[in-house]
Amino acid sequence: MTISQSILNGERLALARLLTQVENNTDEGRAALMELFPHTGRAHRIGVTGAPGTGKSSLVNQLALHYRKKEKKRIAIVAVDPSSPFTGGAVLGDRVRMRDLSGDPNVFIRSMASRGSLGGLAQSTANVTQIFDAAGFDIIIVETVGAGQSEVDIARLAHTTLVVEAPGLGDDIQAIKAGILEIADILVVNKADRPGVESAEKALKAMLELAHPTARVFKHHGTYMSVNMPAKKENAALWIPPIQRTVSTEGTGVPELAEAIGRHVDHLRLSGDWALRERARLEVELEALIREGLMNKFRGELAAEAYENVLESVLQRKRSPWEAAGALLNGDVK
Amino acid sequence: MTISQSILNGERLALARLLTQVENNTDEGRAALMELFPHTGRAHRIGVTGAPGTGKSSLVNQLALHYRKKEKKRIAIVAVDPSSPFTGGAVLGDRVRMRDLSGDPNVFIRSMASRGSLGGLAQSTANVTQIFDAAGFDIIIVETVGAGQSEVDIARLAHTTLVVEAPGLGDDIQAIKAGILEIADILVVNKADRPGVESAEKALKAMLELAHPTARVFKHHGTYMSVNMPAKKENAALWIPPIQRTVSTEGTGVPELAEAIGRHVDHLRLSGDWALRERARLEVELEALIREGLMNKFRGELAAEAYENVLESVLQRKRSPWEAAGALLNGDVK
Repeated sequence: MTISQSILNGERLALARLLTQVENNTDEGRAALMELFPHTGRAHRIGVTGAPGTGKSSLVNQLALHYRKKEKKRIAIVAVDPSSPFTGGAVLGDRVRMRDLSGDPNVFIRSMASRGSLGGLAQSTANVTQIFDAAGFDIIIVETVGAGQSEVDIARLAHTTLVVEAPGLGDDIQAIKAGILEIADILVVNKADRPGVESAEKALKAMLELAHPTARVFKHHGTYMSVNMPAKKENAALWIPPIQRTVSTEGTGVPELAEAIGRHVDHLRLSGDWALRERARLEVELEALIREGLMNKFRGELAAEAYENVLESVLQRKRSPWEAAGALLNGDVK
Repeated sequence: MTISQSILNGERLALARLLTQVENNTDEGRAALMELFPHTGRAHRIGVTGAPGTGKSSLVNQLALHYRKKEKKRIAIVAVDPSSPFTGGAVLGDRVRMRDLSGDPNVFIRSMASRGSLGGLAQSTANVTQIFDAAGFDIIIVETVGAGQSEVDIARLAHTTLVVEAPGLGDDIQAIKAGILEIADILVVNKADRPGVESAEKALKAMLELAHPTARVFKHHGTYMSVNMPAKKENAALWIPPIQRTVSTEGTGVPELAEAIGRHVDHLRLSGDWALRERARLEVELEALIREGLMNKFRGELAAEAYENVLESVLQRKRSPWEAAGALLNGDVK
């Protein structure tokens, strides 16, 4: 029996083994990804992001517990840590996360860290979620630490993106929200039992109201594709991010959050945005694979010495990087 | 007179105009970058990074003021905000930053935000620093908001990377430091007048001691290149990141920080790491240009309809993204 068949049969050990293969980008991992691809497309992908200190991890745990106990769903959690690019050590240890969810065969938790290659983590995370999707997990929660590009990658990967805030995290936070708001489908004010929760929520509301009713677009292959259009209540196809208070240490607000997520799924299905997001996600993945393939082919055909000579001429400022790239691409090197 | 000549003559308005051209990736911008490239390679690039709430921006302002007043250096500040990928709105308004530095012709401050394209901001930031370098600025400070990939990009761009921490920013911070430590040349504990400064510094020291004396490597073009080797005091070529306390609102500790930066420059020159970092930076840039060139060529040769057909077959799960990419790369599409 191939590993793909074992995955489709729900074998947990095979799943753990394949995830490692996929993370390490082995031949076996790639072959299985191809075999499993026709079995994907059913899972609901939820992205969870926010600044450090907001309590994202315990919120994700509570949400997973809720889905298990109340909705009997099969849950996969992918905890992505892009902040440790060099060693590959994950911030969130698997063991810590397992406390409330251990022993449940319908919950699978995986921590991932960047292996140093630009864009590699996004691709690797996309592949891991494909495996969980094919393995029959109903909900895949992808959680990232930190702000920045990783959130954009999550927004591209997820059907529903949760942005988690918390009261009293310092002044910069306020400013960062403006950018984060644009990828949020649902806003969560966690640690809502702390002082400052009203002002944090008020600030989020003010920013939501400020947000113009413009389309959120991703640029792909030269064309703009509308992925989400917030504001304007009269149009049923439009989604205004709700704000949900939670206290993740106690589970307060978690059932209501799950309800809001459910409403977002309904919206995605009714508006056709589900299909648009699927398309956008697969198009990004296809483009990344094309880039990788082009670069590998280019490297395979290029003599190492020619590359070294060109790089040396750049270091000596005899040639600009643009001229050097042009020469290499045109085969105009010796 | 071309815009490049105006830049070399120190014309401020031409500089502002060219920065916009370069950010918008216009033909004029690219042409000027090529013309100016032979005039680059003199500036010291300092990266400043750290979590939100650490007071990075005011620290950068104080450092710039110090370099202006005490060392008479010409300073450029590039404030990069990768957290706002969709609108292009920068977190750090130019006006706010200018308060203490305005009117000084030897200080230039530029805020940049991501325009949504993956990797686009890193390239754009690299280009902007090239312009400042050619324009004769002695020190270029590149500051980013947030954690994650943007810090890696800064580490690749900078000769000296400052990682800024502050006491009492929540529990996640502690864990994130472990990853950030690896890109730090100098650790700054800002807001050092606040409670908890001793424990913050103690935690950093403990992590520094834990750090094994292994080489820090970047993978480039298939080979590993050593960029920084911390630990082992007996070897003069090795650099152990010092920890500097500052109170940026008052300027406390800033002269000492500038001294530490100076010692790092001496270390880079003596050890040969300056040249290694220059090489690593230009190699990353060259590789990005090659990738872009390969993709543009590929797109130019591909019929839009063929691409759409292949993408559609992926959406219908008839073909995996890997098979689709392979077919497109081999021209095996109709």
